[in-house]
Amino acid sequence: MKFGGTSVADLERIRRVARLVAAEKAAGHDVAVVVSAMAGRTNELVAWTDGAGAAAPGLPASDDEYDVVVASGEQVSAGLLAMTLRNIGVASRSWLAWQIPVITDEAHGKARIEEVKPEKLEICLADGVIPVVAGFQGVDRHGRLATLGRGAGDLSAVAVSAALRADRCDIYTDVDGVYTTDPRIEERARRIPKISYEEMLEMASLGARVLQSRSVELAMAQRVPLRVLSSFVEPGATVGAGTIVCDEEEIVEKRIVSGVAYSRDEAKISLFGLPDHPGVASEIFGSLASANVNVDMIVQSHSLQAGAANMEFTVGKRDAGRSVEIVESLKDKLGFDGVALDDNVAKVSVIGVGMRSNTGVAQTMFRALADKGVNIQVISTSEIKISVLIDAAYTELAVRALHAAYGLDKA
Amino acid sequence: MKFGGTSVADLERIRRVARLVAAEKAAGHDVAVVVSAMAGRTNELVAWTDGAGAAAPGLPASDDEYDVVVASGEQVSAGLLAMTLRNIGVASRSWLAWQIPVITDEAHGKARIEEVKPEKLEICLADGVIPVVAGFQGVDRHGRLATLGRGAGDLSAVAVSAALRADRCDIYTDVDGVYTTDPRIEERARRIPKISYEEMLEMASLGARVLQSRSVELAMAQRVPLRVLSSFVEPGATVGAGTIVCDEEEIVEKRIVSGVAYSRDEAKISLFGLPDHPGVASEIFGSLASANVNVDMIVQSHSLQAGAANMEFTVGKRDAGRSVEIVESLKDKLGFDGVALDDNVAKVSVIGVGMRSNTGVAQTMFRALADKGVNIQVISTSEIKISVLIDAAYTELAVRALHAAYGLDKA
Repeated sequence: MKFGGTSVADLERIRRVARLVAAEKAAGHDVAVVVSAMAGRTNELVAWTDGAGAAAPGLPASDDEYDVVVASGEQVSAGLLAMTLRNIGVASRSWLAWQIPVITDEAHGKARIEEVKPEKLEICLADGVIPVVAGFQGVDRHGRLATLGRGAGDLSAVAVSAALRADRCDIYTDVDGVYTTDPRIEERARRIPKISYEEMLEMASLGARVLQSRSVELAMAQRVPLRVLSSFVEPGATVGAGTIVCDEEEIVEKRIVSGVAYSRDEAKISLFGLPDHPGVASEIFGSLASANVNVDMIVQSHSLQAGAANMEFTVGKRDAGRSVEIVESLKDKLGFDGVALDDNVAKVSVIGVGMRSNTGVAQTMFRALADKGVNIQVISTSEIKISVLIDAAYTELAVRALHAAYGLDKA
Repeated sequence: MKFGGTSVADLERIRRVARLVAAEKAAGHDVAVVVSAMAGRTNELVAWTDGAGAAAPGLPASDDEYDVVVASGEQVSAGLLAMTLRNIGVASRSWLAWQIPVITDEAHGKARIEEVKPEKLEICLADGVIPVVAGFQGVDRHGRLATLGRGAGDLSAVAVSAALRADRCDIYTDVDGVYTTDPRIEERARRIPKISYEEMLEMASLGARVLQSRSVELAMAQRVPLRVLSSFVEPGATVGAGTIVCDEEEIVEKRIVSGVAYSRDEAKISLFGLPDHPGVASEIFGSLASANVNVDMIVQSHSLQAGAANMEFTVGKRDAGRSVEIVESLKDKLGFDGVALDDNVAKVSVIGVGMRSNTGVAQTMFRALADKGVNIQVISTSEIKISVLIDAAYTELAVRALHAAYGLDKA
C-alpha cells in the first residue's frame, strides 16, 4: 500500500490511512506500506535548499546535501504513520531507506534504485509487524542518502513490491483510479477498471498525472500488478474500486481506444529554408540532445523553394528558450532562413492497445477534430497511440470531441 | 563549533553561521560543526508525535518512532549548513549520527551516548572538508535512530569534541557567555570570562539555561574545554568574548562566589507529625525514587509534639501532584498527621569554588536576605554552593541582593 503526500497531509488523514491499512491486515493480507512526505513538506524543504544556494566554483555540487534535507520529509511521515498504527492496535515500525537498505546509484536528486534488499522487511512481516517504508529515498554505496526525483514515491512502492514479490502494489492517491480522460475537462469521463502497462505508460508520459512513468515502467519490467485507488474513503468503500494496471493478456474486454490524454507543456520550434541534404537533422537534434533537451514530435516537409525544407519539432516549455538559442547558434553552419517559436500549443493523444489490430483509428481522430474546426499542426504516432499538436485554445474542445468519437463516455 | 536552534533558525542566520565557521577555518583551525534543528522545528515535530497518540495496550511504546520523527530536524539543518558553506566556498558535508556512527543505548527519547567513532570524521577533516554533524541524535546497536533528550545538542558537541580530541568545544548560542546572574533580573550582571566545570555544573542544574548539565558533566569527565559565545555577531567580533568553562586549576583569579542562580521550577512538600523512628525517610524517598521523582532539598525537624518530626522536601513542579499522591499512599503505613504542597516557592543559589577555602559565605547570604526581609524556608548546601528556598514573590529581590552582597556587579 503506497500513500502519496495528500493522503498523509495531516494527522487526521494519517489516521484514515492507518484505518485503511488495518482493514487490509484484518482481511488477512500481509501488508507493507510506503509513504510520501506530508503534502507541502517537500516543497518547503526544496525551497530551503534553493535558498542555501549553489556550491561555489571548484566545490562539488550540493545535490548530496539536497538529498539529506529533502529525504527528511518521508522520514517524518513514516514515523508518524507507524505511531498511528500502533495507536489503533496494529504492530508496526518505520523503515528508512538506509535501514533496509534501498540501494541506489550516486545520481543525487534523481537516483536510480539498484537493489532493494528484502530480508529485513521479510523478517518484519513474518513477525506480524507492518513495515512503513519511507518512500522517495535510497542510500548509495558510500552510505549517503539519495532521493529518486520528484514523484518517485510510487517508484519506491513498486521496487519494494517487486523485492517482496507482492501480489499487488496498491497506489492510494487523491483520485479513485485512472480515467478515460481528465474529468475536469470532460465530466462524462469514466474510471477505467483495467488498463495495460503499455497504455498506462503512454497515459502517464502524455500528461495523465496519476502515476509516474518510471514507476509504470518498473512495474511492467518486474510484472508487479498495480492498483490505483483513492485514500479519501473509509475502509470497505474501496472494494472493487480503482484501476488495475496489468498485463494486456489479463484484460478480457479490450477497447480500441482506452483514453484521451493531453499536455499543455509543449512548445513548437519551426525552422524555415533548411538546406535539403543529409546530416542536417542529425546536426540539429544531436546538439539538442547534448544539451539534455528532450525532443518529442518531429516533422519535416519540403518547402516551395527548390532544394530546401522546413522542419518543426516540439520540446517541453521550460526547454523552449534554450532550444531556440541552440538552433540559432547553428544558423551559420547550416544556412537556414529563420526560426520561430510557438508555445501556445497543446498535444492531444488517444491511447489504446486495440489500435494494433484495428484500422481507421487515426481517421476517426482526424474527422472528429476536423468536424470541430480544430487544425492539426503536427502528428506523431506509436503502435498504441496517436498524438496531434493543436492550438492550445482548442484543448478542451478537442479532448471532449475525441472522448465522444471513441465512445469513451459509454459504459 | 556547536550552533543551537536559534542560531540556525532561518536561512539568513545559517548564512551568518557559515561565515563564522569560514572565519575559524581561515584562521587556520581544523573545525567540526554540530548543529541543532532550526528553532521551532523540534516543537512542531514533537507536537505531531503527540497527536499520533500512544501505542495501544500490548504494543511497544512508540518512543522509537518519536525518535525517527524528531531526529529529522537536525538532518535538515545539517544539510542546509553544509550547502551554505559550499555556497561561500568552504568544502563541507553533513554527517548523520548513523553515518559516523554516534552509538547510543536503546533508551529512546533520552538515549545516552555510548561511543562516538572518530575515524570517518577524522578522514573528512584530513581531506580539508568541514564535517557538519546532526546533533541530538544517535543510532542504537540495532540500527534504529535514537535522540538524546531535549537540549542535548550540546551533549553531541561535547561527545564529538572528545572523540576528535578537540582543543576546545565552542558552544554558540543566543547569549554571549555565562553571566554572574540572569541579566533580565539584574542589569548589572556581568559576563564571567572563565568558570570551572564544577561551578558551571551547579549553575546549569540550578536553572541557568545556557548549557545543559549533562553536557558539562561529560566535558568535565572528558576534560574538553568549553567556550560559550554568541552566534549573533559577525566573524571577528567574538574574539576574546564568551565564557571559557575549564578546570579550576586554569583559573588564576578566583572569586569566592562566581554567580547567583535561581529556579522557579520548585514545589515544596511538607509532612507533619511523622513518627520519629528509623526507616521513615527511607520509606518516603525510596517510594519517590521508584516513581522516578527527583527530590532536591530535604530538611527534617523535631516537632513540638514529643516523638514526632516534620519533614520538608522539594521536587520539580511537574512532579508535585504525583509526589503528593505517593506520599499520601504511605499515610496509613507511616502514620503521619498531614501533607501540604506549596508550589509558590523559588530556589536561589550562590555558587563558587572559593567557598571551599573561605568562611562566612553563608553568613553573608543570610544577612543580605534578612536585610531585605526575605524569609528562608529551607537551606541546602554543597561544597561549592548554598541554596535557599524562598517565597517565589521575592525571587528578583533576592537575586539582586545577593548579586550586590558578593560584589558581582564590580569588575
